[in-house]
Amino acid sequence: MKSFILHPRLKENTFLIGKFSLSRVLLMNEKRYPWVILVPQKDHLREIFDMGPNDQAMLAEESAFVAQKMDYHFNADKMNIAALGNIVEQLHIHHIVRYKNDSAWPAPVWGKFPPVPYPSGDVPMLIEKLENLFNELLV
Amino acid sequence: MKSFILHPRLKENTFLIGKFSLSRVLLMNEKRYPWVILVPQKDHLREIFDMGPNDQAMLAEESAFVAQKMDYHFNADKMNIAALGNIVEQLHIHHIVRYKNDSAWPAPVWGKFPPVPYPSGDVPMLIEKLENLFNELLV
Repeated sequence: MKSFILHPRLKENTFLIGKFSLSRVLLMNEKRYPWVILVPQKDHLREIFDMGPNDQAMLAEESAFVAQKMDYHFNADKMNIAALGNIVEQLHIHHIVRYKNDSAWPAPVWGKFPPVPYPSGDVPMLIEKLENLFNELLV
Repeated sequence: MKSFILHPRLKENTFLIGKFSLSRVLLMNEKRYPWVILVPQKDHLREIFDMGPNDQAMLAEESAFVAQKMDYHFNADKMNIAALGNIVEQLHIHHIVRYKNDSAWPAPVWGKFPPVPYPSGDVPMLIEKLENLFNELLV
């Protein structure tokens, strides 16, 4: 676990919320949509099936936990959950709150618009809010 | 289980490959990309977390199985796995084989182009191939 290195592109575009027992929990710096990325902290993963069955089960639990908490807290019309990785190969799972009046609806958000970063003054409070939201699984 | 009704839009755009113990297994009628959709056969599901923990675990297993088999058989550059549901609300999980030279790469495939249906003569053999590929979990 100590040797795990987050892909530079993920590092650059996100803020660290914390760590679950398997995944690193990141907030995407795109204020259009509440958007959390889980990155299993094991090296050289590209696909979910590259992990053993226990880690796969753990990822499914951590992912459903994040999706449910975000859905409720942000009052989503729909959660979008996806493992794509066409651009950043390191396995990472998107959890995006979608609203029927968001700018990309009903299209997927990826590649639709250049991201609008959060005003830097808003970030500490948002991270604290998400830490509280995910508190139960943070280690 | 008997009462489960597949959403008409999913029915219209796919071919039935078979059933796993939880999910119905469908082939998307879009010849650009090998594309399989899993639909958990329980009514009124919109999100993965709407299911109980056992069904969530089963879905994770069925999904990883499909992704791994497709990845290997179709020699994918990347698998794209996603639960979106912005248009069709019934919970369904996409498993799409992506190639670096496919028409949408590296963008996600949804909403990119109108689907190109398979020539109808190709469908029976393709379904048989996928039945064989997924045989281990088909009930």
